[in-house]
Amino acid sequence: MATLGDIGVSAVINIVTAFAFLLAFALLRIQPINDRVYFPKWYLTGARASPRHSANLVANFVNLNFNTYLTFLNWMPQTLRMKEPQIIDHAGLDSAAFLRIYILGLKIFGPTAIVAFLVLIPVNASGGMLFFLSRDLVISDIDKLSISNVQPKSPKFFAHIFMMYLFTFWACYMLYKEYDVVASMRLNFLALKSRRAEQFTVLVRNVPHVPGNSVSDTVKCFFKKNHSTHYLCHQTGLLGLWGEKLDSIEYYQQKIKELDEKLTMEHQKILKDPKRIMSAAFVSFNSRWGAAVCAQTQQSKNPILWLTDWAPEPRDVYWKNLAIPFISLSIRKLVISLAVFALVFFYIIPITFVQSLANLEGLERVVPFLRPILEWSFIKSFLQGFLPGLALKVFLWLLPGILMTMSKIEGHVAFSVLERSTAAKYYFFMLVNVFLGSIVAGTAIQQLHSFLHQSPTQIPRTIGVSIPMKATFFITYIMVDGWAGMAGEILRLKPLIMFHLKNTLMVKTERDRLKAMNPKSIDFPEAIPSLQLYFLMGAVYAVVTPILLPFILIFFAFAYFVYRHQVINVYNQRYESAAAFWPHVHHRIIASLLISQLLLLGLLSTKKAANSTPLLVVLPILTVTFHKFCKSRFEPAFRKYPLEEAVEKDTQDEVSEPVNDMKSYLCEAYLHPVLRSIEEFELFELGVDNNRAHIPSQVATELEPVSGSGSGSHSPKEENKVAPKRQDLEVVVEQHDKT
Amino acid sequence: MATLGDIGVSAVINIVTAFAFLLAFALLRIQPINDRVYFPKWYLTGARASPRHSANLVANFVNLNFNTYLTFLNWMPQTLRMKEPQIIDHAGLDSAAFLRIYILGLKIFGPTAIVAFLVLIPVNASGGMLFFLSRDLVISDIDKLSISNVQPKSPKFFAHIFMMYLFTFWACYMLYKEYDVVASMRLNFLALKSRRAEQFTVLVRNVPHVPGNSVSDTVKCFFKKNHSTHYLCHQTGLLGLWGEKLDSIEYYQQKIKELDEKLTMEHQKILKDPKRIMSAAFVSFNSRWGAAVCAQTQQSKNPILWLTDWAPEPRDVYWKNLAIPFISLSIRKLVISLAVFALVFFYIIPITFVQSLANLEGLERVVPFLRPILEWSFIKSFLQGFLPGLALKVFLWLLPGILMTMSKIEGHVAFSVLERSTAAKYYFFMLVNVFLGSIVAGTAIQQLHSFLHQSPTQIPRTIGVSIPMKATFFITYIMVDGWAGMAGEILRLKPLIMFHLKNTLMVKTERDRLKAMNPKSIDFPEAIPSLQLYFLMGAVYAVVTPILLPFILIFFAFAYFVYRHQVINVYNQRYESAAAFWPHVHHRIIASLLISQLLLLGLLSTKKAANSTPLLVVLPILTVTFHKFCKSRFEPAFRKYPLEEAVEKDTQDEVSEPVNDMKSYLCEAYLHPVLRSIEEFELFELGVDNNRAHIPSQVATELEPVSGSGSGSHSPKEENKVAPKRQDLEVVVEQHDKT
Repeated sequence: MATLGDIGVSAVINIVTAFAFLLAFALLRIQPINDRVYFPKWYLTGARASPRHSANLVANFVNLNFNTYLTFLNWMPQTLRMKEPQIIDHAGLDSAAFLRIYILGLKIFGPTAIVAFLVLIPVNASGGMLFFLSRDLVISDIDKLSISNVQPKSPKFFAHIFMMYLFTFWACYMLYKEYDVVASMRLNFLALKSRRAEQFTVLVRNVPHVPGNSVSDTVKCFFKKNHSTHYLCHQTGLLGLWGEKLDSIEYYQQKIKELDEKLTMEHQKILKDPKRIMSAAFVSFNSRWGAAVCAQTQQSKNPILWLTDWAPEPRDVYWKNLAIPFISLSIRKLVISLAVFALVFFYIIPITFVQSLANLEGLERVVPFLRPILEWSFIKSFLQGFLPGLALKVFLWLLPGILMTMSKIEGHVAFSVLERSTAAKYYFFMLVNVFLGSIVAGTAIQQLHSFLHQSPTQIPRTIGVSIPMKATFFITYIMVDGWAGMAGEILRLKPLIMFHLKNTLMVKTERDRLKAMNPKSIDFPEAIPSLQLYFLMGAVYAVVTPILLPFILIFFAFAYFVYRHQVINVYNQRYESAAAFWPHVHHRIIASLLISQLLLLGLLSTKKAANSTPLLVVLPILTVTFHKFCKSRFEPAFRKYPLEEAVEKDTQDEVSEPVNDMKSYLCEAYLHPVLRSIEEFELFELGVDNNRAHIPSQVATELEPVSGSGSGSHSPKEENKVAPKRQDLEVVVEQHDKT
Repeated sequence: MATLGDIGVSAVINIVTAFAFLLAFALLRIQPINDRVYFPKWYLTGARASPRHSANLVANFVNLNFNTYLTFLNWMPQTLRMKEPQIIDHAGLDSAAFLRIYILGLKIFGPTAIVAFLVLIPVNASGGMLFFLSRDLVISDIDKLSISNVQPKSPKFFAHIFMMYLFTFWACYMLYKEYDVVASMRLNFLALKSRRAEQFTVLVRNVPHVPGNSVSDTVKCFFKKNHSTHYLCHQTGLLGLWGEKLDSIEYYQQKIKELDEKLTMEHQKILKDPKRIMSAAFVSFNSRWGAAVCAQTQQSKNPILWLTDWAPEPRDVYWKNLAIPFISLSIRKLVISLAVFALVFFYIIPITFVQSLANLEGLERVVPFLRPILEWSFIKSFLQGFLPGLALKVFLWLLPGILMTMSKIEGHVAFSVLERSTAAKYYFFMLVNVFLGSIVAGTAIQQLHSFLHQSPTQIPRTIGVSIPMKATFFITYIMVDGWAGMAGEILRLKPLIMFHLKNTLMVKTERDRLKAMNPKSIDFPEAIPSLQLYFLMGAVYAVVTPILLPFILIFFAFAYFVYRHQVINVYNQRYESAAAFWPHVHHRIIASLLISQLLLLGLLSTKKAANSTPLLVVLPILTVTFHKFCKSRFEPAFRKYPLEEAVEKDTQDEVSEPVNDMKSYLCEAYLHPVLRSIEEFELFELGVDNNRAHIPSQVATELEPVSGSGSGSHSPKEENKVAPKRQDLEVVVEQHDKT
């Protein structure tokens, strides 16, 4: 067990690492040659472009303006300059809501830390339980400040219970306020959006097969009948058979044209082939009201036919899953939930098996001719140190991909839903294998075994009693995974190397460069669960070992800083779900509160403070009630579209910007990627918002680029100039692309 | 423990009792004086009326037609003569679906019993485990035919596992088919119904208070805006302040008129008093489509305002709960679920307390002057035998009422929902205190305590191991509660006595007699949970002690017989929910299957047949999947109204029977009882379908009265004459009432 001194050493090492990363970042980002790595978002919005070859060749690659080196740390205040509404305009509501999670962490744990330090640390320190044990190796100095230092049966435990109540109420209050804010941000965001295809469109699945009729006719007939005054048109997708994906970098304009013609012929073939028609359709309506009504009601007598739901954004659609029949979906869900359970609890079995194979003897048997080399002592010791951990590392590296594949098999129809589903699975894995695994110090299988054979009251006791002992471990975890990890995030070492490799070896046209630069989206499926583990740690240790809280607070603050920078300058979201992940974030923080309450209950029962049990049992009941209330109060804002809102927006549109030809516009919005031209397809793959997806409106959203980066010298526009309007930006990118 | 002989004696006693009841019933029912007790339904439908005073005075009271005595048992085949569609016309879909539960029991357990007798009884009997113990008092003869007779580790257990699989698949198959049939019966029933107010009406709750506007104006404004083309009118109810309920039996026509005028003035006062206006409204639409859309969509940005749902039938509305605000509802639900939990597990505490007071010493202390009397040995022994059980009996007698009160506090808005909610609570009570309580042989508190301190794998083992030993107890239970209980149900001893008492002492007018006769509805909150306990017993014992199955089968068949008679001749349903309880019935049978699987798993694990565990673990997973599938496949038919159906019915109506003045009709359908005239109010209280509640259609539903009761002599219509059409019948009753 670590002493306070050990923690200090670890802290110094991690702080130095983090600062080294930050310094490297600060130096690398002001080199023009790295500009596309650290500011790709601005290239995509069109605020920056490649330099017109400057007179000074070196200046294209290295920053020669030495003044900027003197102010190399000024990126930090700069990231805070952009206000939230501007971030929403610039990067979307998803990114803005994501940043709010970190602020929520600061809001919940900041005041908690202060109160805990004022109340609990004196109470714990005066406990004296561990003073006579202090030389013992098993007990760390940190434990003197934790609940372990309080003697059994002490009335002091009421301070802890009181603190738990205070913390729960405070956390719930903040959660409520935040949910309220995010929900109204979402409604505002949707309301302010210009007319967009997804507001008028409903995804219909499980269209029944009517003999003698094409799917298209069946859809038309059904909706003409049942939504007579509102039905406008529909698009029927194609069976999940994609056109050839072409590595088109080497093709010249001429060749592309030829190919486009061939593709068009292919499209015709596909359109004529009845086997490739999906039993799903995007049905568009002439008003938001009509679409809202259709999305929320049951259409058919047989409730597993004609399933309707809001259409995702065109760029968010995961086409391959549109045509899965209902029964297949049920079976897929069952199979995948069993698979996830098996993965979480038994993943260690195949890994141990692979490890038992991947040792030196195994290698020598498979490749006997290498034996002389393998026997060299240097190679031998390297392999012996390296091989056993390899399987586990490879598995953890592959895990997000495996979980994403599972989510795809489950049959979700939008990337945003796929990512949320993957995040939920990843959180479950982390909860069992990282959090509980670290506390109980056993594999998940052992945990499962002991949970099945222990009484429900024994389990929180078993876990609770070892919580205070693991505080130092989690402090180290926060510093390595949180602090140093965030510094690594901002450094973008891997994209940096990849971009320069691609740029040197493969890039021939400006479009190639755009593709090499592709900044991707924030990795929600990994970022959100990892982040929520900190909420869990904070909730569990807030009362038990409050000394852990400052470390978490530093993480939240630093991560907020880093991600704010990344959201503004780097990431380009593939889709916009308007903060649809917030209910999940909220639920998992509530779950953390419940876990912390149960574990405190278990811990106190080992401290013979049994008479406090009734007091603590009330807390989970209240928390669950709060959860249910929030669910009914706020969740509909994330799942449904109120008719009041739809009518308001419809009326407003009619007055302010009447559009005559809704039909021709809407009927092309949801085009299967196979049917798009190559250029469109590439833009689509890049996640660049297709111009067709919304009817140009006159709502100007002014963007202010973050000024003051050292690379201003080659920006085509002056830094203080107001950036062009959004829809124009997209046109810019598109034109840009075609040159 | 009972031997087979003991069971035989018990069976003989119960069969004799049941036959005595049946004989008494057969004799009593053919006496003209009892006609209103045993055939009230026909009086309400108008097919029978009081005799015009016959020449022979005695013949009015005693059946003098001695021929009918010779055929006094012929009521049995008669009850089977009415076909299901006729029962639906005559008594409603609720009653018809209720009868189907018994048939479902026969379908599930009939073939199961045959296979179990052919396969399991030989396997068990050849086990030989108990032969050397047979003289032991602990083991009964029945156990020789049960799983207890199989030796540990025997491969014969695979026969039981195979049987469990077979039973589960068979039960699920029957459940699926039955759900399918009932769901389509429901849709057909709703589709065939003539135009009725509830099809066009939506209940809106939590109408926000807009300062300066009345609730009525707010509602009008909101729906004119958001459902412009479909909104028709609305009625705003009154705060739960009922008008004086008047025992009007002694009033003559004149007085009633006077009172009516006074009431009208009261109504005016109430209508003008803003404090008595509810924040809830019944909003009517000009088409079913419009109402279906409004009921299924979210109206307001704030999802806890403007809550819409289908309006219950006018006679099904529970007016007092209409105006409960959303937050209050959440709190009520929490409080009531805690209260139900406490009631189920801790009800024994206050009862023991009351018992400790209600003994002889206590009585002597309270009423010291009675001491001499209490000391008499006869009175003393009577009281000592009687008092201790009294508290428990009073509690069990009060229990359904207590649970109904709890459901009312929970805030449901329709009697049908109140009854379903009460039934769920009652089932939970029976499951814990009757079923588990009998098996584990301890109070619920002791169970709770041991469940909290045992591991999750230990609990099914503890229960499972004592299941075979309790078979004889449950056989006796089935005979007493099921067989004799059903014979008591058909005898209607209490209503018989009550009717004759009232008829002799209080009845002055024909209307009084109608009220004295009031047959009430089937007692769903008690009948359905009690019945489902038999499904649970059957599922649990099907594999363990199959000898129990014939007893259950006899119960199902006999009860089907009895209730069919009662549905046709006695009960008059207060409301019609179109089999809305079926999902609950289905879920609870699925729960029974799961319980039986877990208990078999526990039982086998004590038999050291651990290698069979994986085989049995698969079964609950499959059952849960089946449950989920059924839920999504069929439950929407019970919760929502598909637009396809609404459009179909709307179009059909437009062609076949156009109604011009929908508005004036719909705007009076949902009138608060306070605002009705006394006569209407009494009809309403009786549950007689108010003529206003549906627009007369021309769909003739012909009713065939059950012929052949001995009382034909005084029926105003000849038995073979076709009864008048339904809507006319109601008019008949109404006119009848006014004379």
